[in-house]
Amino acid sequence: MSKPLLLQGGRVVTMDGARRILDADVLVEDGYIKAVGRDRREGRAKTPAIDCTGLVVLPGLIQAHIHLCQTLFRGLADDLSLEDWLAQRIWPLEAAHTADSVHASAMLGAAELLLGGTTAILDMETVRHTGAAFEALESIGIRATAGKCLMDAPSSPAGLREPTDKALSESADLCARWHGAAGGRLRYCFAPRFAPSCTGPLLRAVSDLAEKTGAVIHTHAAETPVELELVKRETGHDEIAYLDSVGISGPRSALAHCVWVDKDGIARLARQATNVVHCPSSNLKLGSGVAPIPEMLAAGCRVGIGADGAPCNNRLDAFEEMRLAALIQKPRLGPDALPAPQALELATLGGARAMGLEAEIGSIEVGKRADLVVLDLAGPHAQPEDADLVSRIVYSARAADVRHVIVDGRIVVRDGMMKTADVAEIRTNANKQARRLRRAIA
Amino acid sequence: MSKPLLLQGGRVVTMDGARRILDADVLVEDGYIKAVGRDRREGRAKTPAIDCTGLVVLPGLIQAHIHLCQTLFRGLADDLSLEDWLAQRIWPLEAAHTADSVHASAMLGAAELLLGGTTAILDMETVRHTGAAFEALESIGIRATAGKCLMDAPSSPAGLREPTDKALSESADLCARWHGAAGGRLRYCFAPRFAPSCTGPLLRAVSDLAEKTGAVIHTHAAETPVELELVKRETGHDEIAYLDSVGISGPRSALAHCVWVDKDGIARLARQATNVVHCPSSNLKLGSGVAPIPEMLAAGCRVGIGADGAPCNNRLDAFEEMRLAALIQKPRLGPDALPAPQALELATLGGARAMGLEAEIGSIEVGKRADLVVLDLAGPHAQPEDADLVSRIVYSARAADVRHVIVDGRIVVRDGMMKTADVAEIRTNANKQARRLRRAIA
Repeated sequence: MSKPLLLQGGRVVTMDGARRILDADVLVEDGYIKAVGRDRREGRAKTPAIDCTGLVVLPGLIQAHIHLCQTLFRGLADDLSLEDWLAQRIWPLEAAHTADSVHASAMLGAAELLLGGTTAILDMETVRHTGAAFEALESIGIRATAGKCLMDAPSSPAGLREPTDKALSESADLCARWHGAAGGRLRYCFAPRFAPSCTGPLLRAVSDLAEKTGAVIHTHAAETPVELELVKRETGHDEIAYLDSVGISGPRSALAHCVWVDKDGIARLARQATNVVHCPSSNLKLGSGVAPIPEMLAAGCRVGIGADGAPCNNRLDAFEEMRLAALIQKPRLGPDALPAPQALELATLGGARAMGLEAEIGSIEVGKRADLVVLDLAGPHAQPEDADLVSRIVYSARAADVRHVIVDGRIVVRDGMMKTADVAEIRTNANKQARRLRRAIA
Repeated sequence: MSKPLLLQGGRVVTMDGARRILDADVLVEDGYIKAVGRDRREGRAKTPAIDCTGLVVLPGLIQAHIHLCQTLFRGLADDLSLEDWLAQRIWPLEAAHTADSVHASAMLGAAELLLGGTTAILDMETVRHTGAAFEALESIGIRATAGKCLMDAPSSPAGLREPTDKALSESADLCARWHGAAGGRLRYCFAPRFAPSCTGPLLRAVSDLAEKTGAVIHTHAAETPVELELVKRETGHDEIAYLDSVGISGPRSALAHCVWVDKDGIARLARQATNVVHCPSSNLKLGSGVAPIPEMLAAGCRVGIGADGAPCNNRLDAFEEMRLAALIQKPRLGPDALPAPQALELATLGGARAMGLEAEIGSIEVGKRADLVVLDLAGPHAQPEDADLVSRIVYSARAADVRHVIVDGRIVVRDGMMKTADVAEIRTNANKQARRLRRAIA
C-alpha cells in the first residue's frame, strides 16, 4: 500500500491509554504503525526517514463534522441566524451545485484540512453529486467518511427535496460504490440533514441501512431552540428522544452540535453511547450557544469535534476548534473546565469514536493506521519550549505550524506543501466555481 | 528617519472615514504615508518598491492591552481562576524577574506580535526593570507605549509592593527617559495595576502626572465580580465610578477588560470618553466572562482590543482576538452582533484612540505614520477570493498570512521573516530566562 517510512527523533504525543509522551521514532509500514520506540533506525538503513528532531509528532487530527460542499460558500453568509443562513444562502447555493463545483469545493476544503493537520473527517455532502466529492477525496488522500445529504420532508426546500425512495436508493448505491474504497480510507455514512428535513420512515430506513452495511449515521441535532420546538411540535418528543425512537442513536450515530440538550437528553446520549460532535466556532458564529460539553463528558458521553462548514466558521482548523472548545466553557463553569488534555482528546480519540474507527485511528499505537501530523513549535508564539506540551498544542499551536502530514502511511503534506494536489489549480477551480454559484443564486 | 518606499499594486483597506477599500499604491516617506492612489510609481523609478500584487494592505494592527513581561510565563499558568492565577503564578514570577529576563520576555513577545501583524501596543510591564523592556522595544522596532506597573496598597504581594513615593518617582524618571523616544515611536504610560493594588493617593497622583506629561494611563478594571466586590468594600463605590473619582477616566485612560460593567458604568465610560480595551481570549480563559462590547459601542464608548499577557491566552495574535470578539457576542445577542467591520475597527482605530494616537495611526491616510501590514490571503483557508474582504480578514485570515510589516516606514518583517532581530537568538534567550524563572519560584 505504501513504502516503509521512519519518523525519526520527534517528541511523540501518543494518546495511548496512559497518555504517554515519548521521545521516540515511529516506524510506518504498509500504511500501519509498526513500531514506536527508540533506535528504530537500527538495521533499517534503507528505510526512508523524515527527520523529526525538535518536532512534535501527533496522531492525525480528526474532525467529525464537516460540510466540504460548503467550502465554496465561505464568506458568503456571515452574521446571519441559522434559519436565515440556511434558507437565504446555504440551501440555494447547495441546490445550484454541479458535479464540478462539488469536486472543487471538496478539493479546496480537503487541502485546507490536510495542510492544517486534519487527517480524517466525517463529512456531509449536499443532496446531489456526492460521487464527485468522493473522487476528490480519493485523489487528495484524506481519510473521509462522507454521505449524501437526505431531505425528504415536505417542508424541505424544493431545490433539494427528494422522494424518500430515491434518496434511500441513491444512498445505498453510493454506499455500495464507496464504502471501504481506497483500501478502507474512504467510507460511506448515511446523512439525514436533520430531523425537521426528514420523514420518520426515512430516518427508520437509514437506521436499518446503517446496521446492514456497517456504515455510520451522520446528522445534526439540537442546534437551536427553533429546531427543538419544530421537532417537538411535529413529533411530540424532545429531539434526542425522537431520534433515538427512530434508531438514530448508539455508537454508530454522530449528532453534530447538541447545544440545547437537557439533563435527560445528556443521560440518554450517554446511555446509548451516541456520539456528540461539538462545533464551537459554528455554534458561536450562528449564535446557537455553548454546548454543555463538560457535563456530557462527566456523564460519560462520547464527544468529538468539528469545524462544520466553511461559511459558519470561517476556517476548517482543528487547532482553532480545540482552543475554542477549551475557552468557551470557562466563563460558565470556571477556568478549570475542559482543560487542554480533554480538548486534545476530542480532536483525536473522540473523533475516531464518532467515525467508528477507534480501533484504527486517534492514537499513535502499534497496529493502528499511520495517520500522523508533525508539528514545528519553534515559533515565538509557542515559546517557552519547556511548558506543558499539551497546553502548547491546544492553546498556542496553529494550523500553520504543521510541517508534515501522513495519511495511511502516505506523505500528503511535506514541509508545509501539499504533495497530492496542486494548490494553485485547486484555488483557480474553486474561484471559478464559486463565481458561477454566486451568479446562479443572484 | 527612513528611506522612501512604495507598496505597489495591493488592495488597500484604508479604514479612512468612508472605510474605502482601494486598488492603490501606498507611498511612504520619512516614516509617514505620503500618498495613497494609483500610478504613484510615475517619476519614482528610484524609489524602492515592495510588490503587493494580489496582496492586501492593512493599517498596522494595534493591541491596546499587552503584558510583555509575562510572555515567558506562557503555558505556566493554565486553567486557573484570575485570583489563583495572579497569586500562585503571575505575581511570584514577576517578582523573580531580572533585567535580563524582562528584556528576553519583551523580545519574545514583540517578535510574535510583529510577525503576526501587530505594529503597536499599549503595554504594562512589571514593577521593576521597565527600562530593560524599553531597550528591547527600541531595538526590535515595534511602536509601543509601555509603563512600569504600580502596586502600593498594603494588600499587594510583598515581592512587588513599593512605597507610593518610590513607585511614583521611578515612573516619572522612566517617563522623562522614554516618553517620545525613538522619534516618538516609544511612549510612556502610567500603569497602576488595578484599583485593589493601589492606594487612592497613588491613583490621584497618577492622574496628575499623566495630565502634566501628556502620557496615557493604562490599568485594569471590572475584570471579575471578586474585584468589583473588593473595590466596593474598600471604597464604597462601583469600580468604574471610583476610578473616575480619582481621575482615572477620560480619553487619556485605557481600562482593560470592563467585563462586569452595568448600564450606569457604560454610560459613565461613554460620557467621559474613557477607553475600554476588550480582551476576549483572556476573559474566556480566566473564566471572567463576556464583556458587553456591543452595548458599549451602541452607547458611544471608545473600544480597543488586546491579547493581554501570553499566560492567559496563550497567543498574542490580533487576528485571533478580532475573530473571537466577533464570535463571542453572537450567542448572547444574535448572529448579527459585532459584525466583521466592527471587529476590524477595534484592532485599528479603536486601538489608536486607546493609545491617544488616533491622529497618527489606525488608518492608511496621507499624513499618518507608516505602520502597515501586507497580508497574503491566497491560502486555501481564505478562498474564495471574491468574498467580502473584511470578512476574510476577520473570520478567515491568520497571523501566519502576514508577509510584510512596516513600522514608522521601516520594514520590520519581510516575507514572513523578522528583519530587526534574530529569532533564533530570541528563542534561546527566552528559554534560558524562562528556565531560571521557573526554578526561582519552584
